[in-house]
Amino acid sequence: MTYCVGLILDAGLVLLSDSRTNAGLDNISTYRKMFFFEEPGERVIAILTAGSLSVTQTTLGRLQEAIEDPDADETTSIMKAASMLQVATIIGDTLNRTRCEIAEQTRELSQQASASMIVAGQRRGGEMRLFLIYPQGNFIMATEDTPFLQIGEHKYGKPILDRVVTPATSLADAQKAVLLSMDSTLRSNLSVGMPLDLAVIEKDALRVSHRRRILEGDPGFMAMSAAWSAALRESFGKVEI
Amino acid sequence: MTYCVGLILDAGLVLLSDSRTNAGLDNISTYRKMFFFEEPGERVIAILTAGSLSVTQTTLGRLQEAIEDPDADETTSIMKAASMLQVATIIGDTLNRTRCEIAEQTRELSQQASASMIVAGQRRGGEMRLFLIYPQGNFIMATEDTPFLQIGEHKYGKPILDRVVTPATSLADAQKAVLLSMDSTLRSNLSVGMPLDLAVIEKDALRVSHRRRILEGDPGFMAMSAAWSAALRESFGKVEI
Repeated sequence: MTYCVGLILDAGLVLLSDSRTNAGLDNISTYRKMFFFEEPGERVIAILTAGSLSVTQTTLGRLQEAIEDPDADETTSIMKAASMLQVATIIGDTLNRTRCEIAEQTRELSQQASASMIVAGQRRGGEMRLFLIYPQGNFIMATEDTPFLQIGEHKYGKPILDRVVTPATSLADAQKAVLLSMDSTLRSNLSVGMPLDLAVIEKDALRVSHRRRILEGDPGFMAMSAAWSAALRESFGKVEI
Repeated sequence: MTYCVGLILDAGLVLLSDSRTNAGLDNISTYRKMFFFEEPGERVIAILTAGSLSVTQTTLGRLQEAIEDPDADETTSIMKAASMLQVATIIGDTLNRTRCEIAEQTRELSQQASASMIVAGQRRGGEMRLFLIYPQGNFIMATEDTPFLQIGEHKYGKPILDRVVTPATSLADAQKAVLLSMDSTLRSNLSVGMPLDLAVIEKDALRVSHRRRILEGDPGFMAMSAAWSAALRESFGKVEI
């Protein structure tokens, strides 16, 4: 399982992913699930992945190949696409094609090979965008009514986002919100695990403004988690029925 | 969808269920999901239901028929069973038999007809027990390590229970905890809906000590929900990363 979340705010994009991959409960590994495609000053694209590792890795490999292809153009390369909408379309098409091929290969095993992605970014002259790409390649875009998107194990961490995140939320508060959302998920689902990858893309920066890998036992994260638990219990004590 | 939760505490049992039933998003009704079988001073049994209404109603009807049968004995009637374990066994067997029959009837529709239940209660001379009964009729029992069980849409409301509920939690705090757990679920899943049924069975009371139906717009519930949201946001402001 996986938990990835992306926020689109007036001030920028905030992204967080876990890194646990498992094939059964007895085969657990760590794989990065957050990837960047960046040409500073021109465009920045982040991709967060959930689902079958063979599908997501192959999709990312193909996106990279398409970028490096000497004949790459705006219909094939996410680094040349004329808009973030076109970026999402290329990623969706590549994901769906890869998923269908792998599903065909593994059909006799009756295993599900599927994946979904969050795509965030901005190109020079365009707006910031945040998309959720479904396994079939179609996608939705976050709007100011619901300025966040989640993939993977999304339910445990949703109540805190519903309550505190609005487009006006600061980047500092947004990082806190996604980390607390992840904290609730880590507590409740063993197949979501540390380390975490956190990234911020400030509006119009056209580069990754800030990246941080949070390792198991990170003192800051542990302190935040403990403080949040204590604050929740204190709040619980104060509320009356 | 449904959300039902049961707590087993040193002081007693606390139960909460929603009442929304839907066949598709365009066919929504209200049905009670909490049922009591009571012989005050002798035994009290509560059943909370999730899943296909035809399965749960038929199962409850058969349990009632078995109680009223002149030949009822401790292997057929939950009001005569020698232990809560035997009560859970009878309910599990009845549920599984009903589910299999209905699944057979509806097979050509490739619809799923399934259901699960929470069973709580105590008989005179025995301990309080809390069970989760799976669609196949097998069950698990809550223990002091995890003194709550949930059925239906359980994820949104689990973080608060994980953080505040222990066997030593008071009955007042426990009611608050299940109501806040439900509040998070109601906010996030439209197919869980008011009114709510709340019940408390105090230890060794051998009767339902307290029951309350909370209707849409209940001023106390709305005030609690608003206070909790405000307290969460205040706590969020205080926690540092």
